[in-house]
Amino acid sequence: MTVQNIKASVLLGAHDLRTISRELSEPSYGEVQVEVSSTTLCGSDIHYYNHGANGDFCVREPLSLGHESAGIIKALGSGVDGFKVGDKVALEVGIPCDKCKFCRKGRYNLCKEMRFRSSAKTFPHFQGTLQDRINVPSAWVHKVPTSLKLEHAALAEPLSVAIHAANRAKVEAGSKVLVMGAGAVGLFSAAVAKAYGATTVVIADIAQNRLDFAVKNGFATQSYLVNSGRGTTIEEKLKICRKIADDLTGIKDDEEKIGEFDYTFECTGVESCVQTGIFATAPGGKLMFVGMGNPIQHLHIGSAALREVDLLGVFRYANAYPIAIELMAKGKIPALDKIVTHKVYGVDDASRAFALAGKPQDENGNLVIKVAIVNKDLE
Amino acid sequence: MTVQNIKASVLLGAHDLRTISRELSEPSYGEVQVEVSSTTLCGSDIHYYNHGANGDFCVREPLSLGHESAGIIKALGSGVDGFKVGDKVALEVGIPCDKCKFCRKGRYNLCKEMRFRSSAKTFPHFQGTLQDRINVPSAWVHKVPTSLKLEHAALAEPLSVAIHAANRAKVEAGSKVLVMGAGAVGLFSAAVAKAYGATTVVIADIAQNRLDFAVKNGFATQSYLVNSGRGTTIEEKLKICRKIADDLTGIKDDEEKIGEFDYTFECTGVESCVQTGIFATAPGGKLMFVGMGNPIQHLHIGSAALREVDLLGVFRYANAYPIAIELMAKGKIPALDKIVTHKVYGVDDASRAFALAGKPQDENGNLVIKVAIVNKDLE
Amino acid sequence: MTVQNIKASVLLGAHDLRTISRELSEPSYGEVQVEVSSTTLCGSDIHYYNHGANGDFCVREPLSLGHESAGIIKALGSGVDGFKVGDKVALEVGIPCDKCKFCRKGRYNLCKEMRFRSSAKTFPHFQGTLQDRINVPSAWVHKVPTSLKLEHAALAEPLSVAIHAANRAKVEAGSKVLVMGAGAVGLFSAAVAKAYGATTVVIADIAQNRLDFAVKNGFATQSYLVNSGRGTTIEEKLKICRKIADDLTGIKDDEEKIGEFDYTFECTGVESCVQTGIFATAPGGKLMFVGMGNPIQHLHIGSAALREVDLLGVFRYANAYPIAIELMAKGKIPALDKIVTHKVYGVDDASRAFALAGKPQDENGNLVIKVAIVNKDLE
Amino acid sequence: MTVQNIKASVLLGAHDLRTISRELSEPSYGEVQVEVSSTTLCGSDIHYYNHGANGDFCVREPLSLGHESAGIIKALGSGVDGFKVGDKVALEVGIPCDKCKFCRKGRYNLCKEMRFRSSAKTFPHFQGTLQDRINVPSAWVHKVPTSLKLEHAALAEPLSVAIHAANRAKVEAGSKVLVMGAGAVGLFSAAVAKAYGATTVVIADIAQNRLDFAVKNGFATQSYLVNSGRGTTIEEKLKICRKIADDLTGIKDDEEKIGEFDYTFECTGVESCVQTGIFATAPGGKLMFVGMGNPIQHLHIGSAALREVDLLGVFRYANAYPIAIELMAKGKIPALDKIVTHKVYGVDDASRAFALAGKPQDENGNLVIKVAIVNKDLE
Repeated sequence: MTVQNIKASVLLGAHDLRTISRELSEPSYGEVQVEVSSTTLCGSDIHYYNHGANGDFCVREPLSLGHESAGIIKALGSGVDGFKVGDKVALEVGIPCDKCKFCRKGRYNLCKEMRFRSSAKTFPHFQGTLQDRINVPSAWVHKVPTSLKLEHAALAEPLSVAIHAANRAKVEAGSKVLVMGAGAVGLFSAAVAKAYGATTVVIADIAQNRLDFAVKNGFATQSYLVNSGRGTTIEEKLKICRKIADDLTGIKDDEEKIGEFDYTFECTGVESCVQTGIFATAPGGKLMFVGMGNPIQHLHIGSAALREVDLLGVFRYANAYPIAIELMAKGKIPALDKIVTHKVYGVDDASRAFALAGKPQDENGNLVIKVAIVNKDLE
Repeated sequence: MTVQNIKASVLLGAHDLRTISRELSEPSYGEVQVEVSSTTLCGSDIHYYNHGANGDFCVREPLSLGHESAGIIKALGSGVDGFKVGDKVALEVGIPCDKCKFCRKGRYNLCKEMRFRSSAKTFPHFQGTLQDRINVPSAWVHKVPTSLKLEHAALAEPLSVAIHAANRAKVEAGSKVLVMGAGAVGLFSAAVAKAYGATTVVIADIAQNRLDFAVKNGFATQSYLVNSGRGTTIEEKLKICRKIADDLTGIKDDEEKIGEFDYTFECTGVESCVQTGIFATAPGGKLMFVGMGNPIQHLHIGSAALREVDLLGVFRYANAYPIAIELMAKGKIPALDKIVTHKVYGVDDASRAFALAGKPQDENGNLVIKVAIVNKDLE
Repeated sequence: MTVQNIKASVLLGAHDLRTISRELSEPSYGEVQVEVSSTTLCGSDIHYYNHGANGDFCVREPLSLGHESAGIIKALGSGVDGFKVGDKVALEVGIPCDKCKFCRKGRYNLCKEMRFRSSAKTFPHFQGTLQDRINVPSAWVHKVPTSLKLEHAALAEPLSVAIHAANRAKVEAGSKVLVMGAGAVGLFSAAVAKAYGATTVVIADIAQNRLDFAVKNGFATQSYLVNSGRGTTIEEKLKICRKIADDLTGIKDDEEKIGEFDYTFECTGVESCVQTGIFATAPGGKLMFVGMGNPIQHLHIGSAALREVDLLGVFRYANAYPIAIELMAKGKIPALDKIVTHKVYGVDDASRAFALAGKPQDENGNLVIKVAIVNKDLE
Repeated sequence: MTVQNIKASVLLGAHDLRTISRELSEPSYGEVQVEVSSTTLCGSDIHYYNHGANGDFCVREPLSLGHESAGIIKALGSGVDGFKVGDKVALEVGIPCDKCKFCRKGRYNLCKEMRFRSSAKTFPHFQGTLQDRINVPSAWVHKVPTSLKLEHAALAEPLSVAIHAANRAKVEAGSKVLVMGAGAVGLFSAAVAKAYGATTVVIADIAQNRLDFAVKNGFATQSYLVNSGRGTTIEEKLKICRKIADDLTGIKDDEEKIGEFDYTFECTGVESCVQTGIFATAPGGKLMFVGMGNPIQHLHIGSAALREVDLLGVFRYANAYPIAIELMAKGKIPALDKIVTHKVYGVDDASRAFALAGKPQDENGNLVIKVAIVNKDLE
């Protein structure tokens, strides 16, 4: 078997990112070898970078980060059908067991045996995509039309989160949607809601420049700037949330108030945003936990329960990549070229990407939305 | 009580349409009085006009036809909230009982006590909208944004049929849709599928000019001209349908075959189209009976059953008007100005409209899609 | 119009229940007059009795309590079809508007115009059923088979809450269910889950005699006694809830651990029970808020969100009475004769019923589950 | 690797069943070796036996039939978790690809790469279970509680068909169900409907003794004997079907007519039964094609479409075995001991089983429902 040496970016501990040389064997049965063209960074990557850990999962051996990736097939293992060398692909990097009841029923994101790249949950760690090349099971590789840029194909991952949220919410055409948070996932949640037929999409954030970006580029139909404090006592907090919710549902559209929202996509994880979302959602509506912040929250649950506002979590995605690719290929997701605001070339330069990715804006005051680590040869 | 005299177009028998004067009292409790601005004609109207009957329902007293209508509120009965004189409205003309299990469960279109205007099913007949003014229960009147033309508001009715079909089909974003038939309902079914997020919408018809209209105006993404005969024996018929289905699923998109369709909206009612639709629909997909032709059909049911292609009927609509109005108001339905291809002014001139409405094209060779009878004063 | 005098029990303030004489006119158009045979008391009744208010709703004029009722039709208003004098009926006492989008879509329990008997939410108050006779719209009266006792027919109301919860949860056959709380609603939730095909139903409570009642009478398949304290800090509280959840999912059945539950019906409203329910529910499962306690809760939301445990409220019921009556009539709800543990005869004696209804057990140490106020003549 | 010789019953052509000796290697990675204890015969087995083919699939090499099977684990391949030698198991014999969109979305029964044992669809044929031992992937083996007889565990297969039908129909508690055909699948469909909470289950057949069996043993609540001819012209046929449907919906229950059915499980595949089922199903109800007969049918489709009676196929099953085993283990399927009416011991005697299995009753006039080929040592 031929083995090649590839460069990989690995994390050894907090802020300790190095480039190493790693041996890569030929793809095994059912695998393809992919030259990674682009990896965009995600909040969990940044968490690992900053803390050497993500929640309870500590980096215990050199770990390549990165799981939002696309590339080009360079070699095929035996038993691979439907792919050829040169195909552009997006990588779905979570590999479930295929056997448990969750996998069998179409909810493979809940598989308890799921191994997810760039995570230290399992040991040995399942290596991420910040390496030159990678062997992956062809079953979890998605072909991408030639017309779609590889840099955009990598966005299939965060877009899949938004699609999974919309699928779980069962967004209906003509509906009214509130998105809390105008980061990448919030922007995609808004865009996906529109692609699913929502006709009113209000996005809320504390940063005016993000809101402007969202509306100007067609992600949302309206925006709302949150500029209240959060209060200290629970009564005070609830009062502030109620006020913001009243403002949000009072936004005018065609001279009429928008009114309560059919769906709220909560993409901040912040308790006060969750609470505001509950208040702003109509009876019978749904609040989706797309972003996760502090897991322990103090909420007016009664306001959801008695109005049958469903509180639904969103954990990664299942069956979303094909939709993500299709929506991008058919032009249903706006401003793809503007989502990746910053690029760094080559995995050796990854730490510069990580430094940027954690910030709301760069040193020139430009918005940071997505930072990509790009293979210059494949751009 | 003040009574006024209004003009009404009434049908007395096949091709026997007359304009009469009818007394109209003030609106009763809960009613509004609407000056009808526009009524577009539907297949059932034309059937009554041509045969003095529609299926088993014979005209037994002068019957005003018309049920695709919009207008302006001229007077309010007592107990009416949420409307004022001058409001633009679309009329939902089927009045269900509000009490049966169908009404209670949200499927009021199946209400056995439903009274539907312009139909001779109930006696005395429930009069249609081809009259100058009409009193209707405010509960079944839908306010329309000032930005929407009344002529378009009248289209909320046929659009609601397409919306109901899409709702029953649960059209998903990124899906592939086949529409059989490029008449008004077919066009709207295609447009609605797109508004719901379908990314591939192929429309099929026997008339090239209808297909050109559909694609050029953005109703569908692709078209297919059916030009085969239908065969005589069942074996021959099935073979032809299979061939057309193969052609349809073989259409290329991004250099790949489209493949089987997730949803087929059958808008012709023709047996061979239904059969083709079954063959062209993917396992686990859905075929919607949107158009109804010969109720007795000879079909390869096994091809649907063994591939779990659901065969789902569509009877009028429930809870569709608000979505129809919202989608039109927000520009999600294309080319509204082109759907009404012909206008006739005043109910006295209704027979000219009926003469046109039955034809595929007018004397100048222009497509006939929708014919409207318009109140010139409100245009 | 003939007017008769009837006796009614009315609340004037906390613990101030009086029997008055009230005039009752003949039933209006669409109404039937029902002689009330049985009313069982509910938590909200008891709340009004104890506090002269329920949450924000204060009694501002004499208010008849009671909304879990059945009776016999004594007179028919005009325009009433499908009923005759002498029919046994269960009363659905919430009257929605029939016109809003919630009513139209089958979720009439969310109607913002809903008027609900025995509640001080609207003014004048909408009088409850603790009166000899009552005129009610026939549309909201449900005929009951002659084989069903009227005393049981009154239980259609609390049973409808459990049915609505099961409907919202979409309980599947063969599933595993946890019920927190073994009061009337908990018992019914357990019984309904079984009637819907759940094969493992564990009921948890702090009272062993309630658990024994539940299992011995076939409401649940297993029981669990909660006997831990609740802790003070959030960390301590969560640890205790986790421990109880582990115990619950560790219960053995056929020598195997039951494992996590597909559905949890939380019928206590207590924060620690909600939290335990979240922990004990399987990924992809559902926790139903059936009981409502303190509306503001401090919860480990992350445990629900990241495992996609849906948190779903249950507000009263919609379209549940027919199922409730059918399940009772066909023997699918066990031990109906034992649910009403105490009876009081005549509305004049209502305060004795209220005194009992608030207690877990009577002076003889017997369980109090449901207390009924019964019309002796109709028993 | 140790290889053993086992006895296998194989079909070479119509009525040409032989017992051969076959080599069986040790179980491979992920496989278990199962000693087959019981296989019940299915219509497709009988079809192969009688015609040497099933539809288009001809036996081209010796084919072991049998796919309704249970047994005991005798050996474990490497990489097998969760099983031990001696475990009782039911075999799910259709092996899908695990990779296509159908597999990923939980509808693996529609997988185009599905290989199904005892079928000649693929070549080399995928051998059925009429052999002493068999190696199968552990992922498709279902552990069975020790309390369940292996003979009953084999029934998990036909029971899964009924469960899949009920799942697709989304049978609701308190509903009314019609089952056409009282063979094994009809009986199970009735029983499953009851286990899912249906309270009225009417079973129809042309054989009174089957109906008596169904009702006496608790599969259905009522029965109906079909004894009409079928007519020759389509008009005559429809008239007869309408008459039977009227009779069916006119059956009395609690002195009231049952009325139209919420669900019809059509288990005969006979055109007139499908048509009767359509007529007898309520608006908004569902007709399930559980049995498949002549695939080409002449039906009054309009009666289904205009009343929104959904026509839904049922192809085998997905995710049904765990429910089947759970329902049997918990006593929710009645009279399991009576479903297998005839047993034959040993695969060498299989032809006797096939001779019996094709007949409605045996030479003594006893009903034939299921015929099992049983391994005497494991009984």
